[in-house]
Amino acid sequence: MDCRCIAAMSGGDPLSLHRIKRRRVGNKDVHISIKYAGICHSDIHQAREEWGKGIFPMVPGHEIAGVVESVGDGVTKFKVGDRVGVGVFVDSCRQCSACKAGDGNYCEPGMVATYNARFNYKHCEEYNAEGGAPTYGGYSESITVDEAYVLKIPDGMDMAGAAPLLCAGITVYAPMVFHGLKPGMKLAVAGLGGLGAMAVLIGKAMGAEVTVLTRSAGKKEEALKGLKADKVVLVTDEAEAKSVQGYFNMMINTISAQYDLSSYLAMLGNAGKFIMVGLPSEPISLSGFSIVGDRKMVAGSKIGNIKETQDMLDFCAKHGITCPHELIPADPAKVNEAYARAVKSDVRYRFVIDTSTFPK
Amino acid sequence: MDCRCIAAMSGGDPLSLHRIKRRRVGNKDVHISIKYAGICHSDIHQAREEWGKGIFPMVPGHEIAGVVESVGDGVTKFKVGDRVGVGVFVDSCRQCSACKAGDGNYCEPGMVATYNARFNYKHCEEYNAEGGAPTYGGYSESITVDEAYVLKIPDGMDMAGAAPLLCAGITVYAPMVFHGLKPGMKLAVAGLGGLGAMAVLIGKAMGAEVTVLTRSAGKKEEALKGLKADKVVLVTDEAEAKSVQGYFNMMINTISAQYDLSSYLAMLGNAGKFIMVGLPSEPISLSGFSIVGDRKMVAGSKIGNIKETQDMLDFCAKHGITCPHELIPADPAKVNEAYARAVKSDVRYRFVIDTSTFPK
Repeated sequence: MDCRCIAAMSGGDPLSLHRIKRRRVGNKDVHISIKYAGICHSDIHQAREEWGKGIFPMVPGHEIAGVVESVGDGVTKFKVGDRVGVGVFVDSCRQCSACKAGDGNYCEPGMVATYNARFNYKHCEEYNAEGGAPTYGGYSESITVDEAYVLKIPDGMDMAGAAPLLCAGITVYAPMVFHGLKPGMKLAVAGLGGLGAMAVLIGKAMGAEVTVLTRSAGKKEEALKGLKADKVVLVTDEAEAKSVQGYFNMMINTISAQYDLSSYLAMLGNAGKFIMVGLPSEPISLSGFSIVGDRKMVAGSKIGNIKETQDMLDFCAKHGITCPHELIPADPAKVNEAYARAVKSDVRYRFVIDTSTFPK
Repeated sequence: MDCRCIAAMSGGDPLSLHRIKRRRVGNKDVHISIKYAGICHSDIHQAREEWGKGIFPMVPGHEIAGVVESVGDGVTKFKVGDRVGVGVFVDSCRQCSACKAGDGNYCEPGMVATYNARFNYKHCEEYNAEGGAPTYGGYSESITVDEAYVLKIPDGMDMAGAAPLLCAGITVYAPMVFHGLKPGMKLAVAGLGGLGAMAVLIGKAMGAEVTVLTRSAGKKEEALKGLKADKVVLVTDEAEAKSVQGYFNMMINTISAQYDLSSYLAMLGNAGKFIMVGLPSEPISLSGFSIVGDRKMVAGSKIGNIKETQDMLDFCAKHGITCPHELIPADPAKVNEAYARAVKSDVRYRFVIDTSTFPK
């Protein structure tokens, strides 16, 4: 099936209108008419080949919300008209111990990312001798995905605001659950982009006391009033930083620039958990003294599995949470402008492309 | 009470015979005739002021096994003749949330170490306006300790081999329990000194498959035959190191020199836990990519609380575990020699001082 999309034709190029083909709807496939696609910072990194060589043309987008257009004969979970989502991965090996445990996101030979990857497992119709057809993401009119990798968007949830939950939401939700965030605990959120905003909203809904750690005095009011954070600490202010020494049970760190890990660890109390979901490109310095003395831990986490993602969507629906966003049309010029603004953190908190507005 | 001891009179001096006074036995105190004291590597660091300024004369020793000589009127847990142990701390603030949770080892204002510290809490008779009398450790004939910080050595357990459990044993036992080591899990032990040897023995008794990671081919046979490790991997051998990529559920790392953290993390499987109990003096380099991709964690741990220590002693007694050791007399020349050998890792796996042999 032919569909319009917005693509980078080579690394670093501005994005432009393009056409791709989606595979025919297989037995277990769901064909989705895409309504909204969030712009994640990793889209920009990959389109610009900042994370290594990309597969071009590249159609970014792994925060996808849409409506089921057709289903294969073997599909049991979805029917035409269902409101559905697709997140960061669309396939996995299905054989390794992680996949068998339901953790396709940690597939040992590797999950198949929603774009900039290849359908390289034999069970997929798009597998071929060259390693499989490329995957194309959500900046497009439609997508065909095996039902095992499709999420149900709960009734009543705003679809545009739901789209970014599929990456930004699940990335912070999964480690909060996995590492045992409980009501009354003190949660710190470092960095206030899309992930940080979702961490504040979800952390609050889980009953934690949520403090935003920021280096920008300008973000204080927005965090308190817009996101209803309990506190904001300006970490560049010595007295403010000192007031939270040894204070937190958990910290979700979304910062992907270099940072002073020890100063953040010092804000955790005994057995405090530092969760890294932002990925600094260079290694950071870890002092043993900053974790041994109070048995703290530094843990990594990567998105979430399909069950966790569905749980997250249901949790967000129950608590009235979607991602605050700015809607833009499916116009490459607007997407390129959004990329430039996202790089400057000039967005609260995600750009979402309205994919019903592709020019005819 | 006057007693003989082996002390460093100033930083870096060879140890020599000395005399100290132990406080009168207070209401809650247990006065202990020390029978054995293990030599921990941290004794050497502190006597040589390698970890900062020390309090001199310094009587090292925080792996203490002895027999109760007398008890205060308010003592309920111990009676004269009981076989008892004292570990790394002999007091704590008793007020902070860690102390209230039973975690005196993580006391927020600070635990009172068994030596090279001061009795700086007002509840202690040895508190004074100058910050409290110094604490003196186990290289001595006797010690007086509040019963809340005294352990029961189980019947039938060899006391000389029990002494090192009070530091080396609990330091590896506590994180194994805290971080959920279960039968059938794959445990790696990096570094084969006193802590490493105890981690092998305790890990095996917990039902884990235990692999020793070493850089010394010479330690292979001893680890397999002496400690009954399931496997030994020579990490300097590329093929051997490769054979355990993504393999372990947990790693206890006892190495206190610099190491390549990423190469150890690569040996952990999904959600694998790297537990740091050795303390490199300089920070190490942590790549986010080495923990985020498989939600691994790097956690620190410091000895254990009193309950965990008693559990550990009971567990070891049940499983016939004590620390393999070399017994030396209470002779300063022999202790100095043991220090020199311990620095070269020339001991399997602890020196223990027989404190019944003080010269008259």
